[in-house]
Formats: sequence, structure tokens, C-alpha cells
Amino acid sequence: MPLSSEERILECLSGYFSKRHPSLALGRGDDCALLENTPRLCTSSDLFLEDVHFRRAYFTPEDVGYKALAVNISDLAACGARPLAFSLCLGLPPDISMSWLEAFFSGMSVLADAHNMALAGGDLSRCRSLHISITVWGQCGDGFLKRGTSLPGDAIFLIGAVGLARIGLSMLETLGRKALEDWPAACAAHLRPKVRTEAGLALAKAARPPSLMDVSDGLARDLPRLLHADNRHFGADIALPEDSLHPELLRYAGMYAKNPAQEAVIGGEDYALLGSCPQETLRALAIPGLCRIGTVTETSEIVCNGNSLESIGFDHFASQLPTSESRSGTQ
Amino acid sequence: MPLSSEERILECLSGYFSKRHPSLALGRGDDCALLENTPRLCTSSDLFLEDVHFRRAYFTPEDVGYKALAVNISDLAACGARPLAFSLCLGLPPDISMSWLEAFFSGMSVLADAHNMALAGGDLSRCRSLHISITVWGQCGDGFLKRGTSLPGDAIFLIGAVGLARIGLSMLETLGRKALEDWPAACAAHLRPKVRTEAGLALAKAARPPSLMDVSDGLARDLPRLLHADNRHFGADIALPEDSLHPELLRYAGMYAKNPAQEAVIGGEDYALLGSCPQETLRALAIPGLCRIGTVTETSEIVCNGNSLESIGFDHFASQLPTSESRSGTQ
Repeated sequence: MPLSSEERILECLSGYFSKRHPSLALGRGDDCALLENTPRLCTSSDLFLEDVHFRRAYFTPEDVGYKALAVNISDLAACGARPLAFSLCLGLPPDISMSWLEAFFSGMSVLADAHNMALAGGDLSRCRSLHISITVWGQCGDGFLKRGTSLPGDAIFLIGAVGLARIGLSMLETLGRKALEDWPAACAAHLRPKVRTEAGLALAKAARPPSLMDVSDGLARDLPRLLHADNRHFGADIALPEDSLHPELLRYAGMYAKNPAQEAVIGGEDYALLGSCPQETLRALAIPGLCRIGTVTETSEIVCNGNSLESIGFDHFASQLPTSESRSGTQ
Repeated sequence: MPLSSEERILECLSGYFSKRHPSLALGRGDDCALLENTPRLCTSSDLFLEDVHFRRAYFTPEDVGYKALAVNISDLAACGARPLAFSLCLGLPPDISMSWLEAFFSGMSVLADAHNMALAGGDLSRCRSLHISITVWGQCGDGFLKRGTSLPGDAIFLIGAVGLARIGLSMLETLGRKALEDWPAACAAHLRPKVRTEAGLALAKAARPPSLMDVSDGLARDLPRLLHADNRHFGADIALPEDSLHPELLRYAGMYAKNPAQEAVIGGEDYALLGSCPQETLRALAIPGLCRIGTVTETSEIVCNGNSLESIGFDHFASQLPTSESRSGTQ
């Protein structure tokens, strides 16, 4: 079914997203949305672009809608905020059908509903490739969880697996959706990353709020960002023994003769939460799925399993999503 | 100069946009920006895409930066809000140089500085074509200026010319930047639309706040949107005599044997403010540049210069930016 008009798309969208929400005094349909007065608002924006962040070859439209919103909500979780609403900018190429869009909105609304989030506005345009840009906002409690508040001696922790999404990406690039059969967890980590909102909210209740971020570019690249404050570069001594890594990551490392810990630290887009705080805080909070991986140190060096770790990771302008030309290079 | 890394781009950007702002408790650099508590926040998002909304052939990078932000601020003006901050998502194709980006940030910062707006965050990615997506937020006073609050007998007014930007687009498509010589006002209307923040703020002070919007899709398409409320479709009787239209529009209509009023009502992207309120309110407010063009009527019909006006205008999925193939059709 061809896209005939903005009005038809908006009508389809309105079947999945309510205009009313307790956080909105006025929702979609005017030049601006008007927010209800809400203290301690925080906001984040992320791009989700075809052939950069996802491929239609192996993302269902529901997956695209889900992940586009998930990567944004993850930023709220990383600050200990409760999601409230979002705006959605959509650039649509001519080959996107109304049924594709309907499935896309459906996948997105599942996650929005799970977090009781409103779609407050946005924009639509034709575009050469499928382009999604989202701004989310949410409400912090007393503790806004920043990066850069770590202190030497703090426990470093992860909530969620790392390195798995990159393996899912690699397998999906090679095998398409057939990869889901042998690599279900890795593919799910890439297609439908878990959003750790409840963990973020629980961490925000700590007496001394943890330093926290989500791991989007890989532990090797993101851990120094967590530990860096204005004039300080603390280091870390972390351990990633094999029994702490996901069985699919271990299987992948075995098949391709890779170091499992290396695979775990370079893989991005897992959206695990990475943080640091005193060990006694962790004990008091008892967050499900939280795993201590090491300790903040005085030096700026990052040591993993006893070896110094160079800052290697993912830069959108240096490294790229594997394409068919470079596919063999990703394994 | 090739784009080597996200870090270099962020460093360049930080030369133009301060991280600190009275409306931000925490600015760029973390997973979220944290806003200072501000009552009556409103927000809007707009796409600004290469070869859909602009062409690099005749937009300087400064123009692109300026207009991408201007079309967003215009939405705040249309609600009577004072701009506070924005987030910027940038998709960059490989042929964008650091010097292009620097000029782009420079053009954008001129407008941001003029409105004392902060750049609160955003995202960067490589992309097939140049893609800009902005979310702005601002603060309303007591009066949030909505659409759909018109009443029969209200005066309908415009602040700013209409139809001019479409002529600028057409001439720029045909002649490139040489069009600036003979069509300076029309080209400026397309390249650097005026943002009418002060007029919006002044209108918001009215005892009965006007119904207001900005004209992005053309008067013919936008006036019914202004007049439409939940269960009501009011009409309008407007007059656009030749002496109310811009001399370049009249010259264009003469050269191409067009009806000047028709050209005025179908042209989009002028970002004039269009509103309605009691005539005595207009007299009391005395807004510079405000021009009364007609009266709200009980029927749903829109009459212009004595003739009924079909709703014709611009739909991104029905009508398109003229391309070289369809260039002759735009004149």
C-alpha cells in the first residue's frame, strides 16, 4: 500500500499512541506539546538510521520500532530517570508501506506502553533511507546518576551482558534471521536490547548516588568515560572470567579463536548499565542481575584480567557497521 | 579535511555552543541533560533533510545551520513561548568536511545566541545524506497559544509575508545563488526565514490569548487547521489585495501569468504567524508587522478575495521539492 499522505500516517499512528498522558497538558497536534509542570526533567536524543544502526534485511518492522525507542529509554535509565514521553521524527523512503509502518508503530508502542510513555509530537518527511530520530524525556528523583563521580576503591558493576550484541550483529549480517536459531540471545541483544529502567531507578535511591552510564560503544571505550571527571582520570582493575560471560559469547570465541574477554570489552550496543559505587551500597540495594566486575583505581590505567587495556571501541566515523563488502572482517 | 572522529566534531561544536545555561542543571556530555525546574515547558521537533528541505547547491553551510534551527524556533513562537534550549541530531555523509561543519555550527549559533538558547545534547552518526533533526523547548507564560480557539467574528491576521519562500525556492532551483540578485527577499525567505519570537511573546500577553500557528504548509492548507477545533470547522473570509503582497511576489506573478493571491496562499515554508483574535485585542497589542487579512465566519468555507478556496497546499508525500527533472513544473 503506497503512502498517500501525512494524514493517513498520523491516523495509523494514533491507533497506537494516545494523545493524552498525565505528563502532558497538551499533546500532539499543535505547533508544540505543552508539558505539565514536572520537577527534575531530563532529556536525551538518539538517531536510529537504516544501514548504520539497523538493516531491514533482518530487523522486522516491530524490531525497528522497538529498538529505536529502547536505545533512547536506556539513556534515561542510565541517569536513574523514570520515562515520561518522547517525540518521533521519521524520514520515510518510498518503499515503506502502510503495513510496514503499522508494524513499526506496533513494536514501538509495546515498549512505550510498558513504560507508560506518551508520544508527544514529532515530524514526518520523505527521505532517501529510513531515518528515525527520537528525543525522550523523563523525571529524576533526588539522585541524577551522572558519569564522573567515581572514587578510588569504589566497586565497578555491570547490569546486563556485554559483547553479546556485537556477536548478534555479526551473525545476523552473515546469516540473516536464520542466525536466530543458533544465536538466540546474541541476536535478541542486537534486535531487542533490554532496557534497565527499574535498575536505574533502584540505583538512584542510594545515599551516595552511583556513577552510571549505559554501554553503547563497548566497555573498553565507555569505562574510561565513566571514570573521567573534569580534572581526574581514574583507572580500573576489572576481571571478566569466563564463567561471568554469556555462553553464546564463549561459543563464538571458541569457534573463531578469539579471546572471550576481548570480545566482551569491544562489543558495543548492549545497553548494559555500567557504574561504580561503594561496595556496601551495592549490598544494601541488592539489584537483580547486578554483577561486580572490579574496582576503581588511582591510576588512569584500565586493567582487565591482569592486562592493560587500550581504549578500543566503536566510533561511528572510524569504524562502521559491517557491510556485505567487509562482512568477513567482522568475524 | 576528512571527518576523523566524533571527538573532533564535538570539539568543533563546543567552540560555538556553551555547555552552561541558566535553564540547564547539567548540559551536554552525559547520557541525559538535566533541566532546571521550569514551569510551563513546551517542546517541538522538526526534520531538516538534504534534498527534501534544502540543497547544498544553493544553501551555504551557515544557511543550513540557521534554517534548521529557525524552523524549530518558529514552532515555539507560534505557541507564544520563549526559547530555552535544543538538542541536535546530525547524520553526516562522507563528503561533509570539518570546515563545512564549522560554518554550519557558526550559522546555527548565530540564531541560538540571538535567542539565548543552549545546545543541550544530541547525537552524531554517519548517514547517506545530510540529515538534521532538532528538538527545541521553551517556556510559555500564562497564555499557551493553541490552534482551534478561534470564534466567528474574530479578526484573522498574519505577521510576515506569505508565498515568498516558495518563489525563492523556485528561483534558487532554477538559477542557483544567482537568484539572490533579482529575488533577494524571496531567496532570503527560503534560505533564512525570519523567526517571530517577539511577536509570539507579545500575543501571549493578550487577555484572551489568540489562536495561533506558523504557516509552514501554505495559507490554504494551514488556515483550516487554525480554525478547526474538536467538533467545529469555522470558515474565513479573507482578502489579499495586491498592495498587501510583496513586490517580488507580484513581479513573479506578472512574469509567469499567475494570480498573485493564489501564489500567496499556496506557498509554504514562510513561517509567518497566522492567528485570530478579537479586533480590539489587536488594537491593544499593536504588534509591529501584524496585518489583518479577514474575519472568522460561521460556515466552514474559506473565501479569499471573494472566491471559495479549496484546501491546496503542501504534503511531503504528495508534493515534493522540485528536482531538476520537474524544475519546469515549479514556475
